[in-house]
Amino acid sequence: MAEDRKHDLLLKENQVAGNGLLDRRLFLKKGLQFGAISTLASTSTLSLAKSETEATIDPANPPWMKQPGAPFSTYGMPSKFEDEVVRYPSPNDVVKGNGVSWTPLHKMEGTITPNGLHYERHHNGVPQIDPKQHRLLIHGLVKQDLIFTIDDLLRYPMQSKICFIECGGNSNAGWNSQPSQSEAGYFNGMVSCSEWTGVPLSVLLNEVGLRKKAKWIIAEGADAFAMQMSIPIEKALDDAFLALYQNGERIRPENGYPLRLIVPGWEGVLNVKWLRRLKVTDRPVMARNETSKYTELQPSGKARLFTFPIEAKSLITSPSAHMLLKEKGLYQITGLAWSGRGKISKVEVSADGGKTWAEAELQEPVLDRALTRFRLPWHWNGKLAVLKSRAIDETGYVQPERKQLVKERGRHGFFHYNAITNWQVDTDGFVSHVYDKDETAKDNSDISIDSGWD
Amino acid sequence: MAEDRKHDLLLKENQVAGNGLLDRRLFLKKGLQFGAISTLASTSTLSLAKSETEATIDPANPPWMKQPGAPFSTYGMPSKFEDEVVRYPSPNDVVKGNGVSWTPLHKMEGTITPNGLHYERHHNGVPQIDPKQHRLLIHGLVKQDLIFTIDDLLRYPMQSKICFIECGGNSNAGWNSQPSQSEAGYFNGMVSCSEWTGVPLSVLLNEVGLRKKAKWIIAEGADAFAMQMSIPIEKALDDAFLALYQNGERIRPENGYPLRLIVPGWEGVLNVKWLRRLKVTDRPVMARNETSKYTELQPSGKARLFTFPIEAKSLITSPSAHMLLKEKGLYQITGLAWSGRGKISKVEVSADGGKTWAEAELQEPVLDRALTRFRLPWHWNGKLAVLKSRAIDETGYVQPERKQLVKERGRHGFFHYNAITNWQVDTDGFVSHVYDKDETAKDNSDISIDSGWD
Repeated sequence: MAEDRKHDLLLKENQVAGNGLLDRRLFLKKGLQFGAISTLASTSTLSLAKSETEATIDPANPPWMKQPGAPFSTYGMPSKFEDEVVRYPSPNDVVKGNGVSWTPLHKMEGTITPNGLHYERHHNGVPQIDPKQHRLLIHGLVKQDLIFTIDDLLRYPMQSKICFIECGGNSNAGWNSQPSQSEAGYFNGMVSCSEWTGVPLSVLLNEVGLRKKAKWIIAEGADAFAMQMSIPIEKALDDAFLALYQNGERIRPENGYPLRLIVPGWEGVLNVKWLRRLKVTDRPVMARNETSKYTELQPSGKARLFTFPIEAKSLITSPSAHMLLKEKGLYQITGLAWSGRGKISKVEVSADGGKTWAEAELQEPVLDRALTRFRLPWHWNGKLAVLKSRAIDETGYVQPERKQLVKERGRHGFFHYNAITNWQVDTDGFVSHVYDKDETAKDNSDISIDSGWD
Repeated sequence: MAEDRKHDLLLKENQVAGNGLLDRRLFLKKGLQFGAISTLASTSTLSLAKSETEATIDPANPPWMKQPGAPFSTYGMPSKFEDEVVRYPSPNDVVKGNGVSWTPLHKMEGTITPNGLHYERHHNGVPQIDPKQHRLLIHGLVKQDLIFTIDDLLRYPMQSKICFIECGGNSNAGWNSQPSQSEAGYFNGMVSCSEWTGVPLSVLLNEVGLRKKAKWIIAEGADAFAMQMSIPIEKALDDAFLALYQNGERIRPENGYPLRLIVPGWEGVLNVKWLRRLKVTDRPVMARNETSKYTELQPSGKARLFTFPIEAKSLITSPSAHMLLKEKGLYQITGLAWSGRGKISKVEVSADGGKTWAEAELQEPVLDRALTRFRLPWHWNGKLAVLKSRAIDETGYVQPERKQLVKERGRHGFFHYNAITNWQVDTDGFVSHVYDKDETAKDNSDISIDSGWD
């Protein structure tokens, strides 16, 4: 058939790796006509519609063109038709204010996370803080203690940075003996990306004047948990800042209103929300969340402590688990990559389970420690395919296969899971999560992921 | 006094233009201590607070640390303490669905506009479109007509672009004989900036196949007004795209859900919302909004037509009209700059009414046709000061003074006002909008701005 010959030609001229991966510049070709794509659209008149989404109205004369629309609003909300694009809360069974809510990455595009969908990780709920009553105290090994109101801080010089925050526990179902079948966002969605704006911490530390023995800063949040985290003074003076704004407006309560410490590229828990106190010290505080939690038990029986930077990672968000490819043909593989050590330099994609790889297109601008969107055209031939993505950052670090990660770290570390994720497209088009075949779990003693959120 | 000597030293070492403008790299200086700033914070213990925002609770033991906080939420909203940070609707008196709502730029920071605060400009309200019933027809001078469902479009290759959209009528109170005393956002806030994601129009035009006589594309919206706009085919093939996502999530209804045409850098009205039809033609449609509206009457009696690109423009958002500087000392002047012709290459700021200028710091990344944040430290000596900002884009175009713009265009053009805005800081610290002294309006026949929104 003519259609099949078009497909063959498309593959012959543009295939760059096995199983239908096509040149990332395919869509830039001038005058290229995709028989492969245009079969999607209907060549008939307006009164006819495709079977997939059957029109029950006359599309040539829709009801919303016959009457005036809704009035102006002071603060907009998503369409009612998008009411399934929400965060997915997973509260702890015992303490409801402890747990997480996930960003639905598989229902999103681009790199910015809208504020309403930024992931949450709380230890005792979201405090409702009156900004006029809130104070920030900086004290400890300083020349003078200082207390700042939010109004004081708003007069200080600001900077903005588009960067991701990822919980150290994101994707930790990956440690389990069997592959999680949750949708991509409900397994990997404890990562979000915003434009944060606030006052460089270095400016405030200059104000108080550091004493010679200053080596660490203990950041404390104003929630009922009184979260405390230790941050090395070098990072505090380098690029940490105190954010007041997120994507242009003041930070949302669940993201730290009115003040959040941002520690670019370092695990989420260090980005202390509802910041009320910075104590300069000569040693870490050894709080619960830097000793018994947010540390990783190794095969040796010792635990990794203070594992701050987020290692390079990527995830195909479409196609991904629970999606259904309804027909063979051309698709765009798309996903996100990020690294706590700088910019993403390359993302490679495989459609044959890792035998061959092709370089994906990175959406410009590729920013330091921000989510980076990658895309690659793919022609699905209707047969079984295993999709993988692999991030490489500017330090040369390569995202590991799961087998390699488990070999190095064991399966009881709980945190910092950043292995390659496999999505298997079955012959009926259904997508599921699989491990590589040689990854049979000899050790079935899974950690209980849910009980881990405490 | 010691404090005054510190200020004198700060000025002596760092002043770069008249009336207290300081080196934009001031805050990068290692170890620099700002007596000037640290007077803001309190050196006393936690139980004492500054008079400006008197604490009525004990900040060392706030109530929100004594009880669990609010639960997780599926979709977040701003803090109740930020309920005055909203759009300001200005509906037409006769037709309520016609008019605008303004982005409150003076209450925001960074460059991204959160979706809830993106400005609105509608002609007959906001249609509530069912995406399953919506269709896009491409027809006219093409080889085959095609009809696309939203599901069809979601399979096409996508691209993302962070760019501004500005209404051609933004800031048009600037044409009036007397300076508007509205807050900065309620006079200039018909500009917003998002990360838009969607399908390149060139890809879809390749699908339908353009005929040789194709010169224009008529885009039509699915609102009750049935907005029609003409776009030259060169721009359509260059960088126009059909957005489905805004800042990561699907576009909001008031911004064109489920489909909006994005025409980067060109005036807002061309970015047709609720896109339902693209007709390829050999001439513009000469619709109402490209003839009697969105054109500019010149002093010659002739009107400018098809004035597509937004000229370079900037605006200081803080300090700005209605703000009050409570004490002399160090401030950060900050604002936004943008150009429809590319990147902003430089923003200059004056604190002495244009006698001397200093270069502001531009927040990286500076992106093509995106809002660009600029900042500059300023020491206010308590005397009268007139602040100005001037944008220069990568084409070398320099934002004009109002006098120059009025000389070239007259005062009855209504659209494309991009002159420099003056904010005057009075000796009591109150900020107001002023025109230059030599700009006495000889012609008092103001256009009625409100009636213009029809």
